[in-house]
Amino acid sequence: MDKKLATRLIDVCEGRAEADLLVTNCKIVDVFNKTVFEGAVSVVDGHIASFSPEVKAKRTLDAKGRYLLPGLIDAHCHIESSHLSPAAYSDLVVAKGTTTVIADPHEICNVAGLDAMRYMLLASEGLPLSVYLMFPSCVPATDSEHAGAVLLADSVAAMIGHERVLGLGEMMNYPGIAAALPFVMDKLECAYQAGKLIDGHAPDVKDRDLDAYAACRIRTDHECSTPEELTERIRRGMYVALRQGTACRNVLDLLPGVNADNASRVMFCTDDCQPQSIMENGHIDYAVNLAIGAGMKPERAIAAATLNAATCYRLADRGAIAPGLRADFILSPSIEHIVADEVFISGNLVAQGGRILKPAAHIRPEKVSGMMDVASFDESRLALPLKSDRARVIGIIPGSVVTENLVEEVRRDADGLFVHDDGLDILKIASIERHHGTGNVGVGLIKGYGMKRGAVATSISHDSHNIIVVGSDDKDMAVAVKELIATGGGITMVQDGKVLMTHTLEIAGLMTDRDAHTVYEELAKMHEIAYGQLGVPKDIDPFMTLSFMALPVIPALKITDSGLFDVTAFSFTDINP
Amino acid sequence: MDKKLATRLIDVCEGRAEADLLVTNCKIVDVFNKTVFEGAVSVVDGHIASFSPEVKAKRTLDAKGRYLLPGLIDAHCHIESSHLSPAAYSDLVVAKGTTTVIADPHEICNVAGLDAMRYMLLASEGLPLSVYLMFPSCVPATDSEHAGAVLLADSVAAMIGHERVLGLGEMMNYPGIAAALPFVMDKLECAYQAGKLIDGHAPDVKDRDLDAYAACRIRTDHECSTPEELTERIRRGMYVALRQGTACRNVLDLLPGVNADNASRVMFCTDDCQPQSIMENGHIDYAVNLAIGAGMKPERAIAAATLNAATCYRLADRGAIAPGLRADFILSPSIEHIVADEVFISGNLVAQGGRILKPAAHIRPEKVSGMMDVASFDESRLALPLKSDRARVIGIIPGSVVTENLVEEVRRDADGLFVHDDGLDILKIASIERHHGTGNVGVGLIKGYGMKRGAVATSISHDSHNIIVVGSDDKDMAVAVKELIATGGGITMVQDGKVLMTHTLEIAGLMTDRDAHTVYEELAKMHEIAYGQLGVPKDIDPFMTLSFMALPVIPALKITDSGLFDVTAFSFTDINP
Repeated sequence: MDKKLATRLIDVCEGRAEADLLVTNCKIVDVFNKTVFEGAVSVVDGHIASFSPEVKAKRTLDAKGRYLLPGLIDAHCHIESSHLSPAAYSDLVVAKGTTTVIADPHEICNVAGLDAMRYMLLASEGLPLSVYLMFPSCVPATDSEHAGAVLLADSVAAMIGHERVLGLGEMMNYPGIAAALPFVMDKLECAYQAGKLIDGHAPDVKDRDLDAYAACRIRTDHECSTPEELTERIRRGMYVALRQGTACRNVLDLLPGVNADNASRVMFCTDDCQPQSIMENGHIDYAVNLAIGAGMKPERAIAAATLNAATCYRLADRGAIAPGLRADFILSPSIEHIVADEVFISGNLVAQGGRILKPAAHIRPEKVSGMMDVASFDESRLALPLKSDRARVIGIIPGSVVTENLVEEVRRDADGLFVHDDGLDILKIASIERHHGTGNVGVGLIKGYGMKRGAVATSISHDSHNIIVVGSDDKDMAVAVKELIATGGGITMVQDGKVLMTHTLEIAGLMTDRDAHTVYEELAKMHEIAYGQLGVPKDIDPFMTLSFMALPVIPALKITDSGLFDVTAFSFTDINP
Repeated sequence: MDKKLATRLIDVCEGRAEADLLVTNCKIVDVFNKTVFEGAVSVVDGHIASFSPEVKAKRTLDAKGRYLLPGLIDAHCHIESSHLSPAAYSDLVVAKGTTTVIADPHEICNVAGLDAMRYMLLASEGLPLSVYLMFPSCVPATDSEHAGAVLLADSVAAMIGHERVLGLGEMMNYPGIAAALPFVMDKLECAYQAGKLIDGHAPDVKDRDLDAYAACRIRTDHECSTPEELTERIRRGMYVALRQGTACRNVLDLLPGVNADNASRVMFCTDDCQPQSIMENGHIDYAVNLAIGAGMKPERAIAAATLNAATCYRLADRGAIAPGLRADFILSPSIEHIVADEVFISGNLVAQGGRILKPAAHIRPEKVSGMMDVASFDESRLALPLKSDRARVIGIIPGSVVTENLVEEVRRDADGLFVHDDGLDILKIASIERHHGTGNVGVGLIKGYGMKRGAVATSISHDSHNIIVVGSDDKDMAVAVKELIATGGGITMVQDGKVLMTHTLEIAGLMTDRDAHTVYEELAKMHEIAYGQLGVPKDIDPFMTLSFMALPVIPALKITDSGLFDVTAFSFTDINP
């Protein structure tokens, strides 16, 4: 707010100036009182002036009795999970009524460090979608694999002052908080000094550990599993984000803990969403509708998706329909099931009938393109010498990112090297370091992927995003890895030495500037090939499954660029037991 | 919060360090969920660490099952109304469980301008009570009398950056907002630029005027009269402070508009309280208990008096009992009727059984003492020549600050000067400018004060705080005025040329460093004399009534240092109709 805008708003209210737009005949959702009232909304200079239908206006829109509600806010997301650049992501989610997101660029920062922060800020500047960032607190997420960057307190301090950086991102290192590790406390100090927020991520943290976590003013959590956990976090002053992402969902599990008296302390978030689920189910609107469907009072659910998030993140200019606030709003025919018929941002119509009117402008991702610094890689690096026929094997559990730590009988050739046996569902899996040209390649075995012949590789590999590749023979695997190196990253499938299809993710190997619809169709085609020609069973996702096989903080056995990692023992382990 | 404190808190939670204090066996009021739970509260370095009874502690206090609730917050008050300096005020209200106040030093700033702001900041530094200030937005409140200072945007800009100045004080000039007057908008701009808040004061403002008022982000109002007004303000994003002061009270009137869905948008305030009402009824505890008595859920009422005010005023370190927050709390035997059995501030016991343990330290009010710059005053200045026997007379309406504009038959002497008639309840009243030595004296007549013989004078005279004097003869009046000039201000009573008693207010003529109990007893004695020896009728307050006779923004007829003012016509008027 400034004097000029305030004066314009007053002048419109008092009839001394014309509004740019007057929306009449609406049922306005009042998220402060959690009621609906009939009125009009006038807009000037992108902000709401008055509820009076009698102000003068250049243009009038008859809402025909529809509900007018604030633009929705996603309290916590990783844009990278959509495979979309900020601009393409904006086009996708704005059409669903989301007008503001709090994004943690944890994935791309693990690849490109501060360059990634700068890219995300630049690429999200001036979009229809308001993008606020949290500075990722845990880069790298673990010491057991090599990420592209190490972001310590000096890096946090360098960026946290930016007006669109709201604070320190989800503090996944809760053991580091409990231990008050100096390098963790130094990052918190940056947020304290800047007067900014700290997001949480505290699955299963409870009692005195939760006290310690809250005591250092970590303000949010989106990792609750039960209503009791929600109550305990709210009790300690935290906001709880109810999450409805593509894979991780807890809205319905947590709702029994939400009531009239604590509803102002909950918000909604998506965390990680694939374009498919956004296009098919929706974004924050989907979470709101789920909550309403489960019995939450609509105005309370809408307040959670707007006012509460704005309050938590101190976005004083939005989160409600009220004079002086940004004119970010949705027209919906219903309040029991909200549908973003028309979406207005700063008073301009930007989407209609679920489609964006004008795609957002992209910026060139120069500093985060071609992030493939792989040294001395060739097929020979994938050889896996075994001392016996009994080997440790990563066991895929369908629908889970947890794996089993198996010991299986496998085939070896005359030189003692692993060879694929058509009769056994055991494939080779490798993680190839791609950030610093270390030449690291970790090779292991995996069971349950079901592929008969060929290779699949991806540069999305949480959280360090090295190249992960699975395959029935070293040649196909090497072709797949080289394809990703050549394209700057993405997901590729190879059979008989030939690339079947590549879903290119040219931005840090994680995202693309292509639009959501194209990405959606590509991914659909990719899945079709994986399930058909490659024979991956339908109870696992061929690509997301791979993406978690290198994450050495989730049990039980994982492959990193430094070798096979026993998460339970929290140490590297030998392939032969 | 800083790293050092955060580390200490974590260490206590995790058992690596001892807490300073552990309060066990409490029913903790959870204002986030609005519930009560049994637990313990540990404190280190003035902040709450954990709810666990198992942390190690240097000292343990058994709360014996009492309720432990956050220290109360007064969302809007004028400390000056208590006649007490900030230190004496702290002693008084802390004993009632109020641990934080948002104070608008509007009165003293009308006397001493920026010196008054500096004094209030200095005198409230380091008290047990946390005193935050709002920079008064309306000094002077009117052009129709002479105040001690004119505070424009440059003055606001000079002080609003102070860490204990939360923003711009109650914007009483709502017509100035509706008109978007540049000097008013310039003050708002100071708050916008500093990222600070703006308090409201908008009696009867509605519809498009209220839209305009809210559109410029005025964030609070404490002047609602009906539940509908409360709803309309909350709807526009404002917080509503329910007021329970000595004279102005609206808690019970507004409560019917408060429900589970909007309760998070209301707070409590006292605005103006005399020491007597605080000592006899209480402070914010009184308002909370009234609300609970009228049916408000206790946890909601307590949240209104704590969390909601802290949220509104962005005091992130207080307002609840939770790890990481200041250890400002109360032990009360009941939650249905809270009683501040014991009051802790920063974890230290400061009051017990309604009594402060150690009086707060005062600072010398040098720059705001002896604020009596009165020029060329003597008895002759009180002469009132009349052109006829018919004169305009200010008519007191008992229990109201509104007056009647009367025309009465009065007595004149041979020279045409007004003389007091024992048979008529018509006295002379005068306002003597005391800030700039202008020599201004305005003289008029008043009916209904009931005094038979003598004079009463006070330097509390809203909002400019010139000396106001009423009397049956000029000599007594002159003695009274001279007594106030000699003592630096206060309230005095004179009869037959002798001072009967003076309640000295040596700080700007408004406040004293004497303690609340002394002030209470002095005022009781003063009232006894006024009602007894001077014959003032009991249906009016002899001193507060006078204090509003110079306020030319409240109808209908008032006396200012520039003369008789017809508020209805909004112009000066002649004594003879």
